[in-house]
Amino acid sequence: MGNWLIRNATIVTMDDGRRVLTDTDLLIEGNEIKSLHPSGTGPSELPEDRVIDGSGLVAIPGFVNSHTHCAMTLLRGYADDMPLMPWLQERIWPVEMKLSEEDVYWGTLLGIAEMIRAGVTCFNDMYHYFEAAARAAIDAGMRAVVSGVLLAFLPDADERLDRAIEFARDWKERGDGLVVTMLGPHAPYTVPDHFLQRVVEGAKSAEVGIHIHVSETAGEVADSQRDFGQTPVERLDRLGVLDATPVAAAHCVHLSDGDIETLAAKRVGICHCPGSNMKLASGAAPIPKLLAADAVVGIGTDGPASNNNLDMMEEVRLSALLHKLQSGDPTAVPAWRALEMGTRGSARALGIGDRVGQIKPGMKADIALIDFRRPHLFPRHDVISHLVYAARAGDVHTVFINGRPVMLNRELQTLDEPRIFREVTDRLERLT
Amino acid sequence: MGNWLIRNATIVTMDDGRRVLTDTDLLIEGNEIKSLHPSGTGPSELPEDRVIDGSGLVAIPGFVNSHTHCAMTLLRGYADDMPLMPWLQERIWPVEMKLSEEDVYWGTLLGIAEMIRAGVTCFNDMYHYFEAAARAAIDAGMRAVVSGVLLAFLPDADERLDRAIEFARDWKERGDGLVVTMLGPHAPYTVPDHFLQRVVEGAKSAEVGIHIHVSETAGEVADSQRDFGQTPVERLDRLGVLDATPVAAAHCVHLSDGDIETLAAKRVGICHCPGSNMKLASGAAPIPKLLAADAVVGIGTDGPASNNNLDMMEEVRLSALLHKLQSGDPTAVPAWRALEMGTRGSARALGIGDRVGQIKPGMKADIALIDFRRPHLFPRHDVISHLVYAARAGDVHTVFINGRPVMLNRELQTLDEPRIFREVTDRLERLT
Repeated sequence: MGNWLIRNATIVTMDDGRRVLTDTDLLIEGNEIKSLHPSGTGPSELPEDRVIDGSGLVAIPGFVNSHTHCAMTLLRGYADDMPLMPWLQERIWPVEMKLSEEDVYWGTLLGIAEMIRAGVTCFNDMYHYFEAAARAAIDAGMRAVVSGVLLAFLPDADERLDRAIEFARDWKERGDGLVVTMLGPHAPYTVPDHFLQRVVEGAKSAEVGIHIHVSETAGEVADSQRDFGQTPVERLDRLGVLDATPVAAAHCVHLSDGDIETLAAKRVGICHCPGSNMKLASGAAPIPKLLAADAVVGIGTDGPASNNNLDMMEEVRLSALLHKLQSGDPTAVPAWRALEMGTRGSARALGIGDRVGQIKPGMKADIALIDFRRPHLFPRHDVISHLVYAARAGDVHTVFINGRPVMLNRELQTLDEPRIFREVTDRLERLT
Repeated sequence: MGNWLIRNATIVTMDDGRRVLTDTDLLIEGNEIKSLHPSGTGPSELPEDRVIDGSGLVAIPGFVNSHTHCAMTLLRGYADDMPLMPWLQERIWPVEMKLSEEDVYWGTLLGIAEMIRAGVTCFNDMYHYFEAAARAAIDAGMRAVVSGVLLAFLPDADERLDRAIEFARDWKERGDGLVVTMLGPHAPYTVPDHFLQRVVEGAKSAEVGIHIHVSETAGEVADSQRDFGQTPVERLDRLGVLDATPVAAAHCVHLSDGDIETLAAKRVGICHCPGSNMKLASGAAPIPKLLAADAVVGIGTDGPASNNNLDMMEEVRLSALLHKLQSGDPTAVPAWRALEMGTRGSARALGIGDRVGQIKPGMKADIALIDFRRPHLFPRHDVISHLVYAARAGDVHTVFINGRPVMLNRELQTLDEPRIFREVTDRLERLT
């Protein structure tokens, strides 16, 4: 892995001091950020091919995509602008029934290529064939939190749960620590109490967290009240799900004030997916209230079949825009808060805030360098404002994950894009 | 100018048949689209350096930015996340007071560089020093609708109006037809009745349209009801403003059902700016209702100080997402409708729908080629869906305006970007 020096960059640290350092050198040693120095005072003995000229570039902690179903790249644009149930029943599920493990592997690689190009250095995935997703992440040098999706109505649900627990135990920290595992019960409304209790026990025994969809639609909350006399959050709390560490709760759109208190008190990671929630007309999550309650809030893209990309810059921008509109307050979710949610906040939501999400010595070197030598990022009155309100994924120049350069000057280093395109094309002939 | 052949592209025609043509050759002759042919059956006698390999590229009518204040690039990110009045009074206006004509020229060029890179081929501008904006557009080879901003409270308001009328008459169709002129009374609340009547007369005599902000905030509508007993739309209608041809009405966020009827009946061009309306917490325009009433609806970015970019792809996507959320209906504003609003709809809103906004023989050759050989635009289940829900401005590969290539394979052909950066930097030292 060796050492790398990024010279003369602007560094958005995302640390407690919210520091933005200009003219700074950043030294990577092994898989970690070793040190930061005023330009020219850092180490100079590195060979030229290990030094990156950071002039005009802005380094940020890589984006952490806190909720997705990555292999659904295969179904990007396959059906849009439809109500949820016909979309699922007539279009998505029939294709998903035919998916093989290798289809998921290649679909995941396609999504990882897209994410690396967009400065995303970690994703939290819930899908079928979890081993394939973990394998794809390791092969790409991508950090990933992986959980298999658990749906109680499947005929082999119990067997799948056993395999998921085994996977969670065995694959934890594989790939030089790139892979983190969780259990992925799909949602309160697809998993009954007794099954959720088995998931809680399994997570405890494997010492892993839980990734679950929570209160995405108003209908789901109404059904829960009708069937259980509780909101989904209240029910998950009763069943001990919220005591797992960590819990990554995707969406959390329709919450009562009591739900917000509970989620904040239990340090549940909220995975806010504004683009998907808008596209599917699910609603707007109460992010300003959650932030005011000091909840742990991250940002995710949701799957590319319902987004339709894995672009965290877009989601960060939407997070800043949407809640201004919803609250009628142009000061709601200011730029820094939005960027923090998409990086450090997401890392905390996934229980890995101690290793990624900030640029400071001792953290894993997960870094995206953004090219600011572009007319839409000029003049540079405010770097944070530009990252949130003006930049786009195509501005990402270079990406490190775990100290390894996975993209240098827009060239992917670990993935063979033409091969991925060919594999996906061939597989879709059978699937669609 | 000469001829150009784009060979073997996919063409989104945006014509009445909503046709998407694959494997098609497109011939440009002079400043017009001459013909479309199935690949290989088109003319073959063009020299090699006049042929563009369109394999993997998708041609769309260039985006038309129906409302902006382009030179406000100078103030991009200068102040954000603030309530409107302190933002204007404490931050924006003090700098604008110091602007010179040459500052506006270079700020406009910066914005044009950004827009060309983002596939925008025409913009509708309202700002100080209108001649500078028109000059910048002609120098860049950019299509522009230009109106000087008219504020009745300025001490020399009458003189400015006279100059604006003169400009509108003299500059019309300059630059081989690139420049279209209008009069730009800022908004109903900054221009009293007698002044608006003079604008209407001036527009009539110069045979130009009117560009104006309308009903952007709830407060503006309430004030109008209090002061005039009419909504801003009703008042503009009473004063004859809506009888100008065309009228480009920016924002139109807060409309009564009667306003919607009036705007549709008068064929007023609605310039929808979702990003700005969200960022400034102004509200969500009733776009589904306007479309149902068969109103003329386009899309704009608003100025880059309140957006903070000139990225029409982002605004098109927001238009598709925002109204699904607002209506609770995931089928609202489907992808095609959104893309149509950002191209053909905007062109119609500016009264130039007869010359741009579609790819068909006889139209001016304003074309953006989008590079689909990207992981986030793969697989290609649906080109329109990808353009609206997955693409980003950085995917724009080549741009023609009025038959002239202004960007080839991401290289600007008419603008010197480093010079623009230098000029803007130097000017900001005095301004900020």
